[in-house]
Amino acid sequence: MANQASLGIIGLGTMGSNLALNIADRCGQVAVWNLEPDLTRRLVTENPDASILAAASLPAFVKSLERPRRMMMMITAGRPVDLVIESLIPLLQEGDIVVDGGNSWFRDTQRREVELKKHGIHFFGVGVSGGSDGARFGPALMPGGDPVAYSHLAPTFEAIAARTESGPCVAHIGTDGAGHFVKTVHNGIEYADMQMIAEVYDVMRRHLALGPEELASTFEAWNGGPLESFLIEITGQILRVPGPAGDGRLVDQVLDRAGQKGTGRWTVQVALELGIPVPAISAALDARALSSFKSERTQLAEQFGSLPAGDGPTIDVARIHDALLAAKICAYAQGLRLIQAASDEFDWSVNLREVARIWKGGCIIRARFLNEIMEAYEIRPDLPGLLHAESFRERLVDHQAALRDVVASAQQAGIPVPALASCLAYFDSYRTERLPQNLTQAQRDAFGAHTYQRTDDPDGAAVHTDWLD
Amino acid sequence: MANQASLGIIGLGTMGSNLALNIADRCGQVAVWNLEPDLTRRLVTENPDASILAAASLPAFVKSLERPRRMMMMITAGRPVDLVIESLIPLLQEGDIVVDGGNSWFRDTQRREVELKKHGIHFFGVGVSGGSDGARFGPALMPGGDPVAYSHLAPTFEAIAARTESGPCVAHIGTDGAGHFVKTVHNGIEYADMQMIAEVYDVMRRHLALGPEELASTFEAWNGGPLESFLIEITGQILRVPGPAGDGRLVDQVLDRAGQKGTGRWTVQVALELGIPVPAISAALDARALSSFKSERTQLAEQFGSLPAGDGPTIDVARIHDALLAAKICAYAQGLRLIQAASDEFDWSVNLREVARIWKGGCIIRARFLNEIMEAYEIRPDLPGLLHAESFRERLVDHQAALRDVVASAQQAGIPVPALASCLAYFDSYRTERLPQNLTQAQRDAFGAHTYQRTDDPDGAAVHTDWLD
Repeated sequence: MANQASLGIIGLGTMGSNLALNIADRCGQVAVWNLEPDLTRRLVTENPDASILAAASLPAFVKSLERPRRMMMMITAGRPVDLVIESLIPLLQEGDIVVDGGNSWFRDTQRREVELKKHGIHFFGVGVSGGSDGARFGPALMPGGDPVAYSHLAPTFEAIAARTESGPCVAHIGTDGAGHFVKTVHNGIEYADMQMIAEVYDVMRRHLALGPEELASTFEAWNGGPLESFLIEITGQILRVPGPAGDGRLVDQVLDRAGQKGTGRWTVQVALELGIPVPAISAALDARALSSFKSERTQLAEQFGSLPAGDGPTIDVARIHDALLAAKICAYAQGLRLIQAASDEFDWSVNLREVARIWKGGCIIRARFLNEIMEAYEIRPDLPGLLHAESFRERLVDHQAALRDVVASAQQAGIPVPALASCLAYFDSYRTERLPQNLTQAQRDAFGAHTYQRTDDPDGAAVHTDWLD
Repeated sequence: MANQASLGIIGLGTMGSNLALNIADRCGQVAVWNLEPDLTRRLVTENPDASILAAASLPAFVKSLERPRRMMMMITAGRPVDLVIESLIPLLQEGDIVVDGGNSWFRDTQRREVELKKHGIHFFGVGVSGGSDGARFGPALMPGGDPVAYSHLAPTFEAIAARTESGPCVAHIGTDGAGHFVKTVHNGIEYADMQMIAEVYDVMRRHLALGPEELASTFEAWNGGPLESFLIEITGQILRVPGPAGDGRLVDQVLDRAGQKGTGRWTVQVALELGIPVPAISAALDARALSSFKSERTQLAEQFGSLPAGDGPTIDVARIHDALLAAKICAYAQGLRLIQAASDEFDWSVNLREVARIWKGGCIIRARFLNEIMEAYEIRPDLPGLLHAESFRERLVDHQAALRDVVASAQQAGIPVPALASCLAYFDSYRTERLPQNLTQAQRDAFGAHTYQRTDDPDGAAVHTDWLD
């Protein structure tokens, strides 16, 4: 065959098209196929200089790939992925590699991996982060699948991924669903990050009464320090965009009703299943849900009036900065602890140092802060959690008082800070040797005979007491 | 047939045996069957005066029931329920009624209801609350199923249920899974209630430095006021139980590592699916999970030492009482809002006044407080949520400052109060007309082109802006 590509893309929506162009740029050539030929034609027409092997049919697409054939689906998660896989199976041969680059639920990925293995085909679930710009110019890639087969994907993935001073933003995460799992948690952390930024924005706007100029310049200033990150950077930019008629700022004309896609919710769902607390992510989801109850909120705002009487703020911008940093450590600790738990549960051996490294570029939560996480896991690869790392402990010791002050001042002023407060409670719970769940256990034993263990025999037999007479 | 019972029990564990004895007492007779005959024999032997029709086989059990046959499974949720149903189908006739009294997932109940309807058999999912004592002397019953067929169950259920001045603690909740759903949320609220009690106990013990005697008498005193409830009552009792050697209090020798069963988790899972925030229930689950990380906590407690420097408390017991009451309103608002949302989603037409009424007796969350909820829904059956009720608004206006003060004082002292803080954030979010999710939406549009709506056109078309250049 005259002309074959090392990687093909199935599905030419925004993400698929951009990823295809990225591959064409970095690897010289890409094969593509889309169910509706319009999108294929448009991609080819609009990019006359790109070397695109545009197939008219799925069999033709498969023929346009070098062996072992490597093809990446960039299609809607769920049923469509299963349908494409069904169509592919009769066209493929042993050793071929099918990649799902969508936001799939990791258990679906696990199921598909097992299914395709029966046909001798390797299946990879790959988290692709960074939105359309990331796809085009360098995403963070989180591939999960067979470690040996991964050698056939690594060169292309390393060529197309975002790059930082720590190398290309891709690493083999683990087997089967590991990549999609890590991408899901990435999105969960993104929810928490965004919510905490929204909270400090609200505190500065309503509590400190900062004007639009001060708000924008505060985030710009923060982006030059330890909070430096894509989300802080774009917040500063967003806060500068004027209204359409040159009036005020556009952000003030955006409706405060936030939407959500599935991945934030998935993070909390799987955390519940694994028994790992991720309160900052839960708080972020809840805040979006509450924001959507706009008409109920408007009613209650009227009925309650301007509670509370409202003390003036006892905090300043510098204190808020430190509070956000402390809370961010706690939120990332939650997400990484969840990945650790899943890695243990599913035998993935996920390297959290590598996870932090590849999140440094391409993706939405890219941040200077991830360097510190990387280093913490370099120093101690078996770190039980982020709060156990010396560097983060020092930061928390320094900044915990700021977090307390900011949360307290906001709460006294009636400004909700659910994610910040949940991070504080997480920190205080985690560093408390004796929590009040002794009472909870006594209650459960009292009304349901659930039994309990004793402090002087923590691994001993569960006992029951008749507490009530 | 000489002797037949109006209701039979399948499964003679603690709950089933006690419920059978309750039925025998109140209805004169009960039929029973258990897979292992030992339990049947024991029940009969230990209760020689009870009129028990003990069947040796499932067909004999079915024959011992009046038509339409009514039988209630009190067995482990999940696969066992399906297996018993399979065995029953060939033995039953059209119009017979099969009841599942276990803690089943409401979607399983929906599925089973559809399946049995094909055979002309009515299937009911009934939440049974109150533990073994409730089963024996009067549980709260939450039946879901066909409203017409319910007339065959109502007399027996009303006879065996707990009673309050508002009547028997049972009411037809809705069709198919409604009863099990409401029971699940009941348990979720129970988790939140228990966690908030644990938090105020911790605040009084560690922050106010109250001794065992003061702690016990505080809860006893509270049980004479608006917080009067089973859980407050047993807390007072638990706090009086001496250690086994007469040393200190037994509760101080109980390990602070709390277990959980599925229903608390289910509540949060279904709340996530329906997009309804239940932060107090999430916080309660997270607190139990964190409590179980005992060895990690012990390590961190050592590493962090006794942070923070620790101001003295700025609150007293009276303030904590009011804070708990305010938080309790918010937690119940969350649970009831979730039932409302499910009722809308599944066309159950759940009457929340009735839900509050039947929770007043028999069940773990029984409380004087439920009278106020009942009344609020009597005054306004279409109440959008508890916070919208005038009576609760007044209480919240009175007590919100106490909740702020208690949360702030505890947080400053380093004592985690995740559920109380989450209730405060819920309240403040819900009564805020403009939340900071305008920024969240702008961010989502900036990096993902998710689009947004405008404040001046809230129901208008979603628009997109190029925020970043």
